[in-house]
Amino acid sequence: MKKILQDYKAGKVSLTTVLKKLKTLPYEDIEFAKLDTHREIRKGFPETIFCQGKTTPQILQILQKLPADQNILLTKANKTIFTAVKKLIAIASYNEAAKTIVIPRYKPRKKKGTILILTAGTSDIPVAEEAVVTAEIMGNKVEKVYDVGVAGVHRLFDIKEKIFHANVIIVIAGMEGALASIVGGLASKPVIAVPTSVGYGASFHGIAPLLTMLNCCAEGVAVVNIDNGFGAGYFASLINR
Amino acid sequence: MKKILQDYKAGKVSLTTVLKKLKTLPYEDIEFAKLDTHREIRKGFPETIFCQGKTTPQILQILQKLPADQNILLTKANKTIFTAVKKLIAIASYNEAAKTIVIPRYKPRKKKGTILILTAGTSDIPVAEEAVVTAEIMGNKVEKVYDVGVAGVHRLFDIKEKIFHANVIIVIAGMEGALASIVGGLASKPVIAVPTSVGYGASFHGIAPLLTMLNCCAEGVAVVNIDNGFGAGYFASLINR
Amino acid sequence: MKKILQDYKAGKVSLTTVLKKLKTLPYEDIEFAKLDTHREIRKGFPETIFCQGKTTPQILQILQKLPADQNILLTKANKTIFTAVKKLIAIASYNEAAKTIVIPRYKPRKKKGTILILTAGTSDIPVAEEAVVTAEIMGNKVEKVYDVGVAGVHRLFDIKEKIFHANVIIVIAGMEGALASIVGGLASKPVIAVPTSVGYGASFHGIAPLLTMLNCCAEGVAVVNIDNGFGAGYFASLINR
Amino acid sequence: MKKILQDYKAGKVSLTTVLKKLKTLPYEDIEFAKLDTHREIRKGFPETIFCQGKTTPQILQILQKLPADQNILLTKANKTIFTAVKKLIAIASYNEAAKTIVIPRYKPRKKKGTILILTAGTSDIPVAEEAVVTAEIMGNKVEKVYDVGVAGVHRLFDIKEKIFHANVIIVIAGMEGALASIVGGLASKPVIAVPTSVGYGASFHGIAPLLTMLNCCAEGVAVVNIDNGFGAGYFASLINR
Amino acid sequence: MKKILQDYKAGKVSLTTVLKKLKTLPYEDIEFAKLDTHREIRKGFPETIFCQGKTTPQILQILQKLPADQNILLTKANKTIFTAVKKLIAIASYNEAAKTIVIPRYKPRKKKGTILILTAGTSDIPVAEEAVVTAEIMGNKVEKVYDVGVAGVHRLFDIKEKIFHANVIIVIAGMEGALASIVGGLASKPVIAVPTSVGYGASFHGIAPLLTMLNCCAEGVAVVNIDNGFGAGYFASLINR
Amino acid sequence: MKKILQDYKAGKVSLTTVLKKLKTLPYEDIEFAKLDTHREIRKGFPETIFCQGKTTPQILQILQKLPADQNILLTKANKTIFTAVKKLIAIASYNEAAKTIVIPRYKPRKKKGTILILTAGTSDIPVAEEAVVTAEIMGNKVEKVYDVGVAGVHRLFDIKEKIFHANVIIVIAGMEGALASIVGGLASKPVIAVPTSVGYGASFHGIAPLLTMLNCCAEGVAVVNIDNGFGAGYFASLINR
Amino acid sequence: MKKILQDYKAGKVSLTTVLKKLKTLPYEDIEFAKLDTHREIRKGFPETIFCQGKTTPQILQILQKLPADQNILLTKANKTIFTAVKKLIAIASYNEAAKTIVIPRYKPRKKKGTILILTAGTSDIPVAEEAVVTAEIMGNKVEKVYDVGVAGVHRLFDIKEKIFHANVIIVIAGMEGALASIVGGLASKPVIAVPTSVGYGASFHGIAPLLTMLNCCAEGVAVVNIDNGFGAGYFASLINR
Amino acid sequence: MKKILQDYKAGKVSLTTVLKKLKTLPYEDIEFAKLDTHREIRKGFPETIFCQGKTTPQILQILQKLPADQNILLTKANKTIFTAVKKLIAIASYNEAAKTIVIPRYKPRKKKGTILILTAGTSDIPVAEEAVVTAEIMGNKVEKVYDVGVAGVHRLFDIKEKIFHANVIIVIAGMEGALASIVGGLASKPVIAVPTSVGYGASFHGIAPLLTMLNCCAEGVAVVNIDNGFGAGYFASLINR
Repeated sequence: MKKILQDYKAGKVSLTTVLKKLKTLPYEDIEFAKLDTHREIRKGFPETIFCQGKTTPQILQILQKLPADQNILLTKANKTIFTAVKKLIAIASYNEAAKTIVIPRYKPRKKKGTILILTAGTSDIPVAEEAVVTAEIMGNKVEKVYDVGVAGVHRLFDIKEKIFHANVIIVIAGMEGALASIVGGLASKPVIAVPTSVGYGASFHGIAPLLTMLNCCAEGVAVVNIDNGFGAGYFASLINR
Repeated sequence: MKKILQDYKAGKVSLTTVLKKLKTLPYEDIEFAKLDTHREIRKGFPETIFCQGKTTPQILQILQKLPADQNILLTKANKTIFTAVKKLIAIASYNEAAKTIVIPRYKPRKKKGTILILTAGTSDIPVAEEAVVTAEIMGNKVEKVYDVGVAGVHRLFDIKEKIFHANVIIVIAGMEGALASIVGGLASKPVIAVPTSVGYGASFHGIAPLLTMLNCCAEGVAVVNIDNGFGAGYFASLINR
Repeated sequence: MKKILQDYKAGKVSLTTVLKKLKTLPYEDIEFAKLDTHREIRKGFPETIFCQGKTTPQILQILQKLPADQNILLTKANKTIFTAVKKLIAIASYNEAAKTIVIPRYKPRKKKGTILILTAGTSDIPVAEEAVVTAEIMGNKVEKVYDVGVAGVHRLFDIKEKIFHANVIIVIAGMEGALASIVGGLASKPVIAVPTSVGYGASFHGIAPLLTMLNCCAEGVAVVNIDNGFGAGYFASLINR
Repeated sequence: MKKILQDYKAGKVSLTTVLKKLKTLPYEDIEFAKLDTHREIRKGFPETIFCQGKTTPQILQILQKLPADQNILLTKANKTIFTAVKKLIAIASYNEAAKTIVIPRYKPRKKKGTILILTAGTSDIPVAEEAVVTAEIMGNKVEKVYDVGVAGVHRLFDIKEKIFHANVIIVIAGMEGALASIVGGLASKPVIAVPTSVGYGASFHGIAPLLTMLNCCAEGVAVVNIDNGFGAGYFASLINR
Repeated sequence: MKKILQDYKAGKVSLTTVLKKLKTLPYEDIEFAKLDTHREIRKGFPETIFCQGKTTPQILQILQKLPADQNILLTKANKTIFTAVKKLIAIASYNEAAKTIVIPRYKPRKKKGTILILTAGTSDIPVAEEAVVTAEIMGNKVEKVYDVGVAGVHRLFDIKEKIFHANVIIVIAGMEGALASIVGGLASKPVIAVPTSVGYGASFHGIAPLLTMLNCCAEGVAVVNIDNGFGAGYFASLINR
Repeated sequence: MKKILQDYKAGKVSLTTVLKKLKTLPYEDIEFAKLDTHREIRKGFPETIFCQGKTTPQILQILQKLPADQNILLTKANKTIFTAVKKLIAIASYNEAAKTIVIPRYKPRKKKGTILILTAGTSDIPVAEEAVVTAEIMGNKVEKVYDVGVAGVHRLFDIKEKIFHANVIIVIAGMEGALASIVGGLASKPVIAVPTSVGYGASFHGIAPLLTMLNCCAEGVAVVNIDNGFGAGYFASLINR
Repeated sequence: MKKILQDYKAGKVSLTTVLKKLKTLPYEDIEFAKLDTHREIRKGFPETIFCQGKTTPQILQILQKLPADQNILLTKANKTIFTAVKKLIAIASYNEAAKTIVIPRYKPRKKKGTILILTAGTSDIPVAEEAVVTAEIMGNKVEKVYDVGVAGVHRLFDIKEKIFHANVIIVIAGMEGALASIVGGLASKPVIAVPTSVGYGASFHGIAPLLTMLNCCAEGVAVVNIDNGFGAGYFASLINR
Repeated sequence: MKKILQDYKAGKVSLTTVLKKLKTLPYEDIEFAKLDTHREIRKGFPETIFCQGKTTPQILQILQKLPADQNILLTKANKTIFTAVKKLIAIASYNEAAKTIVIPRYKPRKKKGTILILTAGTSDIPVAEEAVVTAEIMGNKVEKVYDVGVAGVHRLFDIKEKIFHANVIIVIAGMEGALASIVGGLASKPVIAVPTSVGYGASFHGIAPLLTMLNCCAEGVAVVNIDNGFGAGYFASLINR
């Protein structure tokens, strides 16, 4: 832009030309400003591809357009997709439970605090693992404790120290999702609640724990979408900065 | 019936007459058998009138048809109804929180076990009081502890002994209703969960705690209708026999 | 703990050491107290594994951690899981309708009362069988009568005696779930209603019978989750103690 | 039309005029044909005005346009509307429970069969009365039995004869609506089920009995809208012809 | 019973014996009375087996228990079931669209009126065929016209005569289900509306047409469950008597 | 901007100053560009204030900030609001049915085509009037025909010519909303469907007609929010340009 | 008709015969009028077959009945259907993403304006392609820009010119569907919003974007059914005339 | 505890007494530990009373039990409650829009970062004010910008700097709730989304914006209950530490 203005002052371009250029500039500017801002902000943040509903060719095409020095995270990716990605980018690695592919180009800058990830049951582990992978590639230290649901509330007391020392806590629960309320009542740090579609009958594919968590009477609990381990990991990472 | 048969044998009535009588008898029999059975079963059980949707004249009419030596319980009764009932039956007494009228004609036979009634919050008390009134007029010893919701789970431990010693536990909670899960996890006796319409937003007038309680991952929890304190008290009393 | 205190009095350990020990003790205590309490309570109660959403390796791992002298019940278990379990523990047996695996290490103590299990239709049998298996391994005498739905209410009268003599009744029904109301009107003992996902169209995978049962105008009916035969069997067993 | 054609043949009107007339005739014809057909069909059928959502002036205006020799039925009419209507048409009479106004200009032709109208509870009476008024002004003999809900199924047997002898049965029930299933199982004539918004909590303003009735496992049951006593009375009358 | 009484008069049996016998008689009586009544009523009515959720062995077992001279109708039956049934009962025939099996042991008594069965679209035909098969085996004359949905309302006028001459009309429609309203507005006979799960998106598996039909502003329309062609055929047949 | 550049070339401002100014310019530019674009586009379009949820002082404050030469439309405005507005701006006029206030500062430019507004019933008129007011203040010629619901489909044929000659059609219907489907099947111009909350029971405050209209099998129908007469009028006006 | 009247005047047919003929004429007239009207209107419009729920033989049968000089569009068609259609009509072509078959018999008349089709994500492309195919076979110029969802709102500014110059805009979005609101706020032309079933968890198969779009606070947005790309393309084409 | 042990060592109390005391100690300990932990954590955090569903006497009673040196916040408090509280505690002050009462006993410790609170419309202000009051009494610097909804997305760009500089952002929106998605796409800090019950028709008292926000395709957004301004302010404050 500087150059345009200097050329204009030097009489190389007319006023009309400058004005015309400036008319479209704002939008380019926004875009670049935004990208710049984001790039700086995103230090250590991966590019993310949500694979569900995309064809494998589409995913490969997107991968090839992304900058070659970026960390990349693919979520909701099945094994077929992984095989195709692996052929293209050899360092890609797969977490089968989480259904995530990670393409680690550089080591993310380590953050100080710990993110504690709890699940109510064994069946909630896939969602939890998605959160773990997401938080870790963003440079967070993650501690995970699975299967501490409220049916045996005494199990929670064994991990009391972890709850008190974590910087952010992610609580992942299906069925009735009451774990978020208990942890929210014990903890003094932000609790991110993730309802899962684990359960049957009146759990209605995650509606029951979703409502439980939204109505949580303990303060300091916010909720993300059903089965959205990625969103919880990302949000926790934003807090943990 | 014995008399009919004897009259028949004695030739006083014809075979046709007996057969005709017997044709309608079954239905009368069922009715009476049923009433008899019930009467015996119901020793100490009040007649109950659900007032919502009934006009005051209708309620008074029903009251006058009921046997004059029965205990009677009226639920969802507003003050206007009470005033009218009181004029008719002087011993009627009103519980304003519970919106119940009790007409105590005799002292119910005392049962041995204790029914423990817990609420998550202060706003759940009206539903709890309905359960208390119901359980007491059925002869149960009731212990009540209000406002022990999961936001401060340590409050539950103060009443640990009550939880372990009760014969049946009624847990009443609105908002997210997680208290039922915690108590269900601690107790070894039947827990009856009552969702309440207390809350706002995504509690959807009791749907949130209803789903929570139905999906309760702790064993030994069953659920009654939203705000149905009477049903919980009645069911608890059946168990406490 | 007694020993610690005696050691302390004897001067073998310092006040600081005792205080430090006691600081963590509460939580260990809770856990053990809880386990002890439960163990005593649970005499004759099986450990239960809910298989849905768990991988076969996870299930086998859990099985190996459970005490070797415990009765174990696995619910929502398909045949593949059974084959794997059978290899590990030869005495495991499978109920194909109920999708339950039972590992019977000892004979449960027999209880006195009878649990009557009714279904409205033939298609409700799998849920009923889960309740049967659960109640039996907890030492209950179970009587079952299937296919007595309200479309032919006279069939209920044939089993009138069973209804009057049972200590607890489990009513399992899909479609409109009205059987619970009828049985609730006839019986004078607690009725546990289990809605099933049997039906089509506006049964909405069990919502119709769930709502029917929650709104049951007969007193003495409580409800568990859709298709939750296990929960009903367990709750009935708690009442039958 | 006959006249037009005769005039045309007589040369009084031109071919063009006849053709033009016929072009618009169809639509008028449909209307008239329809009205004619209907009039014949409707012998003894009232004109009906659904008052909810209409202003009193609108209702009076409609009334003045209707033929002065017709029976007229106004539904969902409050007392204010009645007062205004009464001023206009002195023979108008009001059923307060049903919230119906009837303007009886002639005696409807009596039909042979009986329509039996049952309610589960006392609170369902307003809906039932709407059905009664509707059926009666259409010339049907109506028998009504209120408060025979399934909580005391033996009460139904007292009216066994009525159930067997009616030509059509209307079953009106709120809460869980199970009465329709029982009557459907006993009766061999068409049963019209009307869910009502009577109840609380999980009855969800009539959704619970609506679903119950739609899923009715007894054959021979069809359903109308929640609280639609008029619709049930009308449909029953169509069957009773 | 007559014999018992005669034996009693003749002194062959004691009063006690007679009384004891009569005590259980009512229930047996009800059953038989009911069966008798029904048998008479059901002249020309088939026994019906709803196959969904039943195993093939269960279906065969039920078939073998049914009287060998009865017409039998099996609904929601897949081809596997038909193959098994065909082996057992050679005269069984299959309607693939309707998924019905008919076992025709005798010709049903013909009824006078016609049942007109309309569908809005081609995709609604399977539900319609279930209604056709049901109505025909009950002795009704059925006329069927498919694909006359409201998107081209003029198609309805082609069948105006059929609509005016039918005794009962069944309207089967998915998507928005508006056909029932139109036909209800044209016809003067009872219209039975069947919502189907045909559609996508906001049809929500039949909820959209179900609500449309329940709210039908035309008088004379009643509704059965989503996809319940059998129920509509049966109900129409009851009216057509 | 032109001036800044000329000043810069003239040496009156430095390069740094120009660059700094341009950095914030984009956003201001967007705003102005947008406003300009809109102003031009909006010739004849009123400013609109949605009153529901706003206090009267807030509404008056907004009114005072709007340009004094603009036409203004206030929707969902009760009489209290109108009284306050009238005091401030004397030319304000109120449509009581529509609950709209119009402040007409200039005559909108007339458009050529006609917008036809139909309602199924009398109770839908308030929503229709909101659409009428909106379309008229935007310069459209509006024709309105009320109460042509499908229960008497022949009434539609009387207005056949209007349907064929309109440029856009707005169909407003509550209860089952089937009118949109019929009109959609007849018309060859865009049909905008507005579900209303008119009805009771299973109309669920407008959900029934909303689903009907979304599933409309006739082509050429789009839907706006329940009771959103304003949105329909506005959208129709956009099409009518 | 003219001939009939002339024959009648000439005495060739009796008055009775003419009257009889005229009685059925209206309906035939309506039909033909309608078809004529439609034919003229539909210039360049394809016949459309919605394939979902139809068998391949049914589709082929319908195809053979359609006029051989018409453009035909088949939607929701899988590959098996295409193979069968291709055998019958060699010029048929398939769009795999859109699941549409086009049978192009003549070139549609080109329209002037442009329809801009936007998607929020890559997964929304199949729905968008259905809209594209539909709009193109109706003679519209289509511009499509995919993957401009609100997560990166700056991408929208790059296409600012396209938004300002299009005549109609179709916005296709799943998940939360917010793109419609943004585009509605920027554009001054009609925006047709299509919710898609893309997403998971609380998107509830398209309910989330459907509600978002219906509640769109930007003016000038109307909505079609979930995943209804065809409907959006058709409606846009009607506006674009 | 130290004293007990010293007394024991000194022989003042017996081993039995100590053991007995320790048996109940754990629970007391938990309580105190919890309270201690909390007290330290809560420096500057107010005690909170949720007033909805509580009677005024109950609220006053709770107030009197709370420590007299604590800051106290009462939410969902109407004016009647405020008048009563004011009489008791003179320094209490009321925010009428927010319906909050604040009892400020000490100045909370100021936090560094800023919480930015945005609303989509004017009607969302009450919820926003609840968040403002909550965040401020917890010592946060709050910046608030109201009425920047997506219908005029350019308004957002005016506050770009505020969005980039805030430490946490609370987005409050009713109707379709799309503002959260846009802000989530622009911001690089955690965004807390609060759906409000503002809107009508298909906003379903906040369900529409709730679903929008849960499905937010922008990363870094978490959701609290409908209308839960308090929860958002509290959660933001936890992050802002």
